[in-house]
Amino acid sequence: MECGLSPIVGFRFSLYPMADDFVSVIKGALEKTDTSNVWMHTDDVSTVIRGKQIHVFNVAKAIALHAAKTGKHIALSGTFSAGCPGDTAGDVYLNRSEEIANTDATTQYVSSQFALYPMNNPEYMEIIYREVNRAKEQGVFNESMHYASGIHGDIHEVFAFYEKAFSNARSEEHKHLVMTVSMSINSPTHGGL
Amino acid sequence: MECGLSPIVGFRFSLYPMADDFVSVIKGALEKTDTSNVWMHTDDVSTVIRGKQIHVFNVAKAIALHAAKTGKHIALSGTFSAGCPGDTAGDVYLNRSEEIANTDATTQYVSSQFALYPMNNPEYMEIIYREVNRAKEQGVFNESMHYASGIHGDIHEVFAFYEKAFSNARSEEHKHLVMTVSMSINSPTHGGL
Repeated sequence: MECGLSPIVGFRFSLYPMADDFVSVIKGALEKTDTSNVWMHTDDVSTVIRGKQIHVFNVAKAIALHAAKTGKHIALSGTFSAGCPGDTAGDVYLNRSEEIANTDATTQYVSSQFALYPMNNPEYMEIIYREVNRAKEQGVFNESMHYASGIHGDIHEVFAFYEKAFSNARSEEHKHLVMTVSMSINSPTHGGL
Repeated sequence: MECGLSPIVGFRFSLYPMADDFVSVIKGALEKTDTSNVWMHTDDVSTVIRGKQIHVFNVAKAIALHAAKTGKHIALSGTFSAGCPGDTAGDVYLNRSEEIANTDATTQYVSSQFALYPMNNPEYMEIIYREVNRAKEQGVFNESMHYASGIHGDIHEVFAFYEKAFSNARSEEHKHLVMTVSMSINSPTHGGL
């Protein structure tokens, strides 16, 4: 049994290029991303990465950014998770330093939606409202909607918001946190910033 | 304030055709589906449908099935939700009968993954394990994995399992339930049944 707040964060996601050559877009994005700091496994529906939080978010952003650079309309949809009581301690690279491996700062507009699910926590609605308010303060809030909140802006600001929200919504008392994120890039329906 | 188990079920999802003509695949699937029993709204990232549970699942399945018939590799990813304390009573067609509008029984192999999130419920892990065991008994279980469970088979059996799981995991005491589902159809990596 692990004690304290487990450092293992995971992200199960799918990258969806809306293009006939989707295989090459996916493979290209994965090849251009330095994934050496995370454990990674791909099946026929999705890919999961696990490791320290800083590396999981860094790798997720890099995959989206590299796919975006093809100019194709792509989507990235997935679930960040930490602290699940049913989780195992394996399949994770926790001996890595805090130094991120992907540092490409290219700007890229992203329109996205997210939902926070702090598990087994009677105060969970307050946590959700607090993070949505923080999005408004930081200028990345797009719109309210049923079951999610719209977050948009430059990919680096959007991912920074999500990583902070994920940190803020976990606690020693309430370890199990889930956050769904769905993002759309290079969509013909985007007006942009 | 609503009392009792609210009949409003919602599904926020995105349909992702991995094809250059993704716009026509999406529009075609929506046009071929009878959505008259649900409230529906589409934005630049996703679509949300709301209504009685039977109609929400029926419409979701019909959209996936119609998109699958193009023969293109498509994915459907989204979140079913009910009983959220922050939900509103509007944007829903509850005056519809129980008669489903989409009855196409064409078989179609689907590989998918799901996760159940019964909110604010100390017994939530037991509920999850119970539904995963039910999948094994019903022959739609594919594999275990981090953060989700693999469910596959014919689209009608897969959706029937999901609708039952969604019913089973809600209760009068624990109204708020979230279920994420991600499915892949016509994938070049599928071996099929």
